[in-house]
Amino acid sequence: MKDKPGTNDFASCPRPITGHDTIQLSHGSGGKLTNQLVSRLFVEAFDNPILNRQDDQAVFELAGSKLAFSTDSYVVDPIFFPGGDIGDLAVNGTINDIAMSGARPVYLSAGFIIEEGLSIDELTRVVLSMQRAAEEAQVKIVTGDTKVVNRGKGDKLFINTSGVGIIEHDYNIAADNLQPGDRLILSGTIADHGMAILSKREGLAFDSPIESDTAALNSLVAEILNAGGAGVHAMRDPTRGGVAASLNEWAESSSVGIKITQERIAVRPAVAGACELLGLDPLYVANEGKLIVSVAKEVAENVLAAMKAHAHGEDAAVFGEVVTDKSGMVSMRTLIGGWRIVDMPVGEQLPRIC
Amino acid sequence: MKDKPGTNDFASCPRPITGHDTIQLSHGSGGKLTNQLVSRLFVEAFDNPILNRQDDQAVFELAGSKLAFSTDSYVVDPIFFPGGDIGDLAVNGTINDIAMSGARPVYLSAGFIIEEGLSIDELTRVVLSMQRAAEEAQVKIVTGDTKVVNRGKGDKLFINTSGVGIIEHDYNIAADNLQPGDRLILSGTIADHGMAILSKREGLAFDSPIESDTAALNSLVAEILNAGGAGVHAMRDPTRGGVAASLNEWAESSSVGIKITQERIAVRPAVAGACELLGLDPLYVANEGKLIVSVAKEVAENVLAAMKAHAHGEDAAVFGEVVTDKSGMVSMRTLIGGWRIVDMPVGEQLPRIC
Repeated sequence: MKDKPGTNDFASCPRPITGHDTIQLSHGSGGKLTNQLVSRLFVEAFDNPILNRQDDQAVFELAGSKLAFSTDSYVVDPIFFPGGDIGDLAVNGTINDIAMSGARPVYLSAGFIIEEGLSIDELTRVVLSMQRAAEEAQVKIVTGDTKVVNRGKGDKLFINTSGVGIIEHDYNIAADNLQPGDRLILSGTIADHGMAILSKREGLAFDSPIESDTAALNSLVAEILNAGGAGVHAMRDPTRGGVAASLNEWAESSSVGIKITQERIAVRPAVAGACELLGLDPLYVANEGKLIVSVAKEVAENVLAAMKAHAHGEDAAVFGEVVTDKSGMVSMRTLIGGWRIVDMPVGEQLPRIC
Repeated sequence: MKDKPGTNDFASCPRPITGHDTIQLSHGSGGKLTNQLVSRLFVEAFDNPILNRQDDQAVFELAGSKLAFSTDSYVVDPIFFPGGDIGDLAVNGTINDIAMSGARPVYLSAGFIIEEGLSIDELTRVVLSMQRAAEEAQVKIVTGDTKVVNRGKGDKLFINTSGVGIIEHDYNIAADNLQPGDRLILSGTIADHGMAILSKREGLAFDSPIESDTAALNSLVAEILNAGGAGVHAMRDPTRGGVAASLNEWAESSSVGIKITQERIAVRPAVAGACELLGLDPLYVANEGKLIVSVAKEVAENVLAAMKAHAHGEDAAVFGEVVTDKSGMVSMRTLIGGWRIVDMPVGEQLPRIC
């Protein structure tokens, strides 16, 4: 009935990952191996101008409207953690991916892959948490799908959320649009989400509890656009791979250098302590309610003020700038006054963080 | 940081499934338990007019355009089967869900949940199969996501596809729009997909191989709309739960009776044989490249001719009609001339068929 691929089809297809015959956990961690897999396999196969931009969302015109479209599957382990659960994480995460293009998220889908045996109480808790998150963000879940897999063939619950938003302005907000002279603003403390998951998973107890920062940032983005207008050049929610991965992707896409100042990057004491204990660098740890934005110098003060006036941006700070030299590289002035290169994360730091 | 639900929240929340404390495989099989879970838990929680229609896709206006938006997660086991694989199944399935609203599918997303250890060769085969399916259907995959879960916490590969389409007409095509007097047309043989999966899974061998019918139906839908115009009242691709589930949902949503004639429902001999051997009724077995359409009597001949002229509708036939009596029920005139009720499927027939 149809031509199925023969072996010859694959002989000519480049193996995406040198040195690996099988998928490793690190292919999903948001670092170099994920990038390889995405660009050498998925983007090469599905090749089209919208996908090839490799942003966290697709932006296109449809029937005269400019829309943003994004998808994310959530496989976080455990599904309940301090500060949130897989439900609000899934709603907020996709809202944020859409919002980072400067779009206003409007509608979400929800696809559930449930492992046989999950308690209906737990599923109900997750669903109610999604309901609250959607309501808070004023976004509607309008379509869904439910699949159940046999015991031992899943892990309690995976959720895919996809979403559609509308872009109501003409600004160019994209990973390849950073301009030398831009100021970089970070909306708050980093590494909260990743360390909340890890502490819970490893059974670590700290004096002050570490909570995930999961939050929908669409209303914060609206304030940023109001304040910065066309001076807003790029936005990103630094999830897997943390702030380090986002900045490296920006530096590469825009062919610019990025300089940041460690002193201006806030880390909660408990989070910093946990990172130190576990030998992790907070710059590489996932956030789920924070954003970084690259804005023209002229609007930086306005944007910063607008962010500080918003509940999700109270601790916002200018933490870096975009420069012409050291193109593609991210350098950080450390607390003790030296400079170090902030590399793209390579392997697996924290699997199944989202 | 945020109010997490206490136990009290759930005390007032109805348990969606009487008699079950945990999720069963049958909650995902497309029958009565899936319906209960969806309507009593998901729809009740996410409550909004678009979702509440409980169609296979959301239809809404956004910035003056009428759009369709749909999502499906694919967990088919095995991931390669005669006639297709999880890749083309995922692309075709979501294209079909969008097309059934009368929309023209335009863009898809692809979310991969990969089990650690999947061979990169197998992943590549699936991705190339998605590429071919998207190309054939003239739909673009514009955004994606990759997650990897630990060995033993997934099952090789799950794929979510979501998609957006545009509705370029004013016809009302919906599950609640069947009209007494409508003719029901089926586009071809039934039960091919389900029996292909089951035969492969159970290692059954038949004289003639059973192949999945996975196919994108968007171009067939375009021909149906051309031929039938506003006389096209409802369309559905009868996947999980088969033709029986789709017809029952229609009869209930539209408060009409449905009468079908077994003689007009084509089943390939090998498929019929396999069904008999395994004690399955082909009416309840999943299809992945077939559709049923309810059209006004006046346009039935035109629509049938247009379908027969299309590669995916060569075996199309009028197989039933919509009546006023026995509201909510589906009755079938059997081969031996009697009548029997075709019930909504209750439990698990074939798990992980898509």
